[in-house]
Amino acid sequence: MGSCSSQSCQSCFFEYETERMIVVKSKVVGSVFRLIQLLILVYVIGYVCVVQKSYQETDSVISSVTTKVKGTGFTNTSDLGARVWDVADYNIPPQGDSSFFVLTNMIVTPNQTQSTCPELPNQSTICMSDSDCLEGSNDVRGNGIQTGLCMNYKETVKTCEVLSWCPLEIDINLPEHALLAAAEDFTVLIKNSVTYPKFNFHKRNILPDVNSSYLKQCEFNRKTDPYCPIFRLKDVVSEAEEDFQTMAIRGGVLGIMIDWSCDLDWPEHPCGPKYSFRRLDNKIPENNVAPGYNFRFAKYYKTTDGRETRTLIKAYGIRFDVIVFGTAGKFNMVPTIVNLGAALTFLSLVNAVCNWFLLTCTKRRDYYSKHKFTYLDNTDDNAGESLGETTYGTR
Amino acid sequence: MGSCSSQSCQSCFFEYETERMIVVKSKVVGSVFRLIQLLILVYVIGYVCVVQKSYQETDSVISSVTTKVKGTGFTNTSDLGARVWDVADYNIPPQGDSSFFVLTNMIVTPNQTQSTCPELPNQSTICMSDSDCLEGSNDVRGNGIQTGLCMNYKETVKTCEVLSWCPLEIDINLPEHALLAAAEDFTVLIKNSVTYPKFNFHKRNILPDVNSSYLKQCEFNRKTDPYCPIFRLKDVVSEAEEDFQTMAIRGGVLGIMIDWSCDLDWPEHPCGPKYSFRRLDNKIPENNVAPGYNFRFAKYYKTTDGRETRTLIKAYGIRFDVIVFGTAGKFNMVPTIVNLGAALTFLSLVNAVCNWFLLTCTKRRDYYSKHKFTYLDNTDDNAGESLGETTYGTR
Amino acid sequence: MGSCSSQSCQSCFFEYETERMIVVKSKVVGSVFRLIQLLILVYVIGYVCVVQKSYQETDSVISSVTTKVKGTGFTNTSDLGARVWDVADYNIPPQGDSSFFVLTNMIVTPNQTQSTCPELPNQSTICMSDSDCLEGSNDVRGNGIQTGLCMNYKETVKTCEVLSWCPLEIDINLPEHALLAAAEDFTVLIKNSVTYPKFNFHKRNILPDVNSSYLKQCEFNRKTDPYCPIFRLKDVVSEAEEDFQTMAIRGGVLGIMIDWSCDLDWPEHPCGPKYSFRRLDNKIPENNVAPGYNFRFAKYYKTTDGRETRTLIKAYGIRFDVIVFGTAGKFNMVPTIVNLGAALTFLSLVNAVCNWFLLTCTKRRDYYSKHKFTYLDNTDDNAGESLGETTYGTR
Repeated sequence: MGSCSSQSCQSCFFEYETERMIVVKSKVVGSVFRLIQLLILVYVIGYVCVVQKSYQETDSVISSVTTKVKGTGFTNTSDLGARVWDVADYNIPPQGDSSFFVLTNMIVTPNQTQSTCPELPNQSTICMSDSDCLEGSNDVRGNGIQTGLCMNYKETVKTCEVLSWCPLEIDINLPEHALLAAAEDFTVLIKNSVTYPKFNFHKRNILPDVNSSYLKQCEFNRKTDPYCPIFRLKDVVSEAEEDFQTMAIRGGVLGIMIDWSCDLDWPEHPCGPKYSFRRLDNKIPENNVAPGYNFRFAKYYKTTDGRETRTLIKAYGIRFDVIVFGTAGKFNMVPTIVNLGAALTFLSLVNAVCNWFLLTCTKRRDYYSKHKFTYLDNTDDNAGESLGETTYGTR
Repeated sequence: MGSCSSQSCQSCFFEYETERMIVVKSKVVGSVFRLIQLLILVYVIGYVCVVQKSYQETDSVISSVTTKVKGTGFTNTSDLGARVWDVADYNIPPQGDSSFFVLTNMIVTPNQTQSTCPELPNQSTICMSDSDCLEGSNDVRGNGIQTGLCMNYKETVKTCEVLSWCPLEIDINLPEHALLAAAEDFTVLIKNSVTYPKFNFHKRNILPDVNSSYLKQCEFNRKTDPYCPIFRLKDVVSEAEEDFQTMAIRGGVLGIMIDWSCDLDWPEHPCGPKYSFRRLDNKIPENNVAPGYNFRFAKYYKTTDGRETRTLIKAYGIRFDVIVFGTAGKFNMVPTIVNLGAALTFLSLVNAVCNWFLLTCTKRRDYYSKHKFTYLDNTDDNAGESLGETTYGTR
Repeated sequence: MGSCSSQSCQSCFFEYETERMIVVKSKVVGSVFRLIQLLILVYVIGYVCVVQKSYQETDSVISSVTTKVKGTGFTNTSDLGARVWDVADYNIPPQGDSSFFVLTNMIVTPNQTQSTCPELPNQSTICMSDSDCLEGSNDVRGNGIQTGLCMNYKETVKTCEVLSWCPLEIDINLPEHALLAAAEDFTVLIKNSVTYPKFNFHKRNILPDVNSSYLKQCEFNRKTDPYCPIFRLKDVVSEAEEDFQTMAIRGGVLGIMIDWSCDLDWPEHPCGPKYSFRRLDNKIPENNVAPGYNFRFAKYYKTTDGRETRTLIKAYGIRFDVIVFGTAGKFNMVPTIVNLGAALTFLSLVNAVCNWFLLTCTKRRDYYSKHKFTYLDNTDDNAGESLGETTYGTR
């Protein structure tokens, strides 16, 4: 391009410039040159293309999940008597979202009404007389609004009276053996459909080659039934390297991960769900505020005289979060061009390496250097020419 | 660089090396050269920049959705009598999340109590005598805990008795015409606000140029009202190419996709929500375990003598999942540099192609070759020089 | 490569071609050359590597959230009397998902039964006689199914009678001071665990160096306690630059954003949650259909004679959406190669710039040009040779 600057553009347009080269016939230098070229080609083909699939455009998954739990459990407690629990009782929320909860343990406080009762005793609620209690005071860690009275909690302990749902829940006696221990045999059917919008690709975790009689009796097993969408809860927990019965006591959060990473350049079949399981909450007891997983909910009733009562349930259990992730890749020109281009740049580095080798490591380096370089001295115009360099149009 | 190795670094620092070129004045070669250059430029500008927008950095959307369903339905069944259903009855969960459910069909089992009753007859529950039933047995597909007795289910059929919520639900007689068929005229208002945190960009699906009187009476229509956020459920279902009344019988999951893909390099206005609708569950009856979408929930009551009763509802209906996705792109130096750089690499390939053309396809290839290449023979030091190659400093 | 075309491939394989160069010893040209090289190096190291971290592969976060609200509130209304609200009353849904709702204001309609009553008066429901009402008509904006009768709503106003849950809710008298104003002192504990599956990286927002006694009494404060996972609702709202009491009246949606953007090349510690808060719904009253956030839900009761009654609650409150986002970056060969490659391409542009400078801006440009370019004329075969160009093997 530089050579055009002093000429007319028209003639310049059809000029083609190309470098003058020296060709070195040397097995040593040639071998080094070819070897480095080979290494770069192996890198480009092997790592960039095969391992990293850099020729692909990627898209993130969009997913929809429905879940359905099956099974019944039986408890026999002094509060509730003999009682059977079915899915409408223990599955909260009932809608079968991607996140569902199975009740395994609980503290039930029946027949609560809006009334007054002495607070649970602790440092800030124990009182000697009414003057220790402040009417209308409302502690964020308390259970209600203080009435200003000091009442007998037990024979020996007095606490401030509160307006609240009474009797108050006493949540220190959590059953040490989970009430609904039978939940480990419950099963859950997970239906998951995914979309990669960029590639207009849709698929479900119930694969098309699976028939419905299989689905009626199968149970997920990493080795024998890796594509069965029905999971026994105990298996899910033990796949996450936890013990169901231990976890059932205080509850926890368990992730059911479904990985839909797919290579869409190949026929559709190998693109299937890969399940993995991991406990998501912190089970380590140290530095653990409020360990496990629990929440309170209430069932509201009305008595015959129109007063509202409720049964408060502090529910411990396992929340299963179905987490769907993955990226799909498909051949696309732009990343291919970008990655090939970048790799080709490295091919040009081969020359730099070989030139260095040629001009410093070979015996005949001076001879090569002499032919490769033409030194122009800036101080003397004629010097360059008198050194025998033939030039165009001056002789 | 190589030429510096045998000299002092200081003088070397100000040396500038540049290739010696031959300039070929040939219309054929020049045309080929310019044509290939043009093709690459067209590719870079047309495809990389305009089509793929590779000069942009991208970010994924973060979204918040609230929904509000409106409408009332009427049913008249033997179980429940004439009854009006409003949003508090049929919309589960009531909170207006991104996923909401509209009840369309149901099997109601009122007045269940914890008691004993004969199991529903099937292969494993039919019995001849008490010895066929195992006390305490609890099948995951059964409805309760067997008491060990064999009872009359009908006059001709005996089944094992279970402790459960009795009477048991009989879910085989699903109404063939959806009870809440009127749900097709319900409307839902979807409020969606999105954020692209990388670009500090916020927007809502209720566009700023829309006034509230329009919002009070509009209804989404792909052609006439593409930005109205109020959707008639029947339209949503038919946009997904499904029939509402058919889908209402067994339920299903319907995705309301909102695409927020935006090009933020242009003024804000064209960045709006693009709605699309798709059925997410598998409607094909073959290989379909538990087709449709349903779940069970219960309303709990207490009788005057303190016993708990419940009304179990197996709810069939359509779950609408509002799925928000999209990527926004904005000009950024790094992807621009990377993609331009990669494209420029291809410009250097032009030389390889033209050289090949010059040295094999032109008539005067030997003449060009002669000037382009200087062959140095490794075996004889003097040979190279004696072949007339002028060299530096030796004459 | 071109030079090989007329020879045997074997000998060609070990040939090494390299450009012939001219070396210009000129402080001006050398300085320009080195300066531009320096600028590109600064760009590559400074911007691409340090600022944009283009040497990293990135992954998006996968997250699990549980929340737990604490606190009690007190209301005293004519409908409900003195009443204490605890978490089971005001927290909907109770499960402690990533999205939780705190009730702050409400319209309660107790003792609704399925019966008939006159519609709320508006343009379409006011009637003069039965002939103005259509039996069985069901307006999507109405409250029930018209019975065809025209009844006295007030002494002076007649409206069509409907079959519905009666008495109807009158939702125009929303309390102007939020009933559960005390909700501002409630606290919420947010437990969040994140995963970057590509890097097998797991972390929780309760950092490992935090002990449990601190967690029992701390409260999030951007300056003093930036890593405490317990948030006072009033602080959350005011961090989003909103007033809690104003927002509590009509409700709203508030985003608690947790940013987990991490640079995993450095030791783990600095990778922590960064909290930010933003109101997600539109608070501007203009162009705002259905401002705020509310939904209706009902508690169902049965009277002693078996009739169903319900208490309908139109719940206004603040929905808190915990939104977790972020990308983690870690060194990876492919993006490094791609970005370095692209930057190196720009190093080759230096030559183009310097050549232009050398051949147009320097005094001795003709002298340099003469040595750099060898012009071959296409029209005369011998011309080139006679111009003194020495050639290989022809003498």
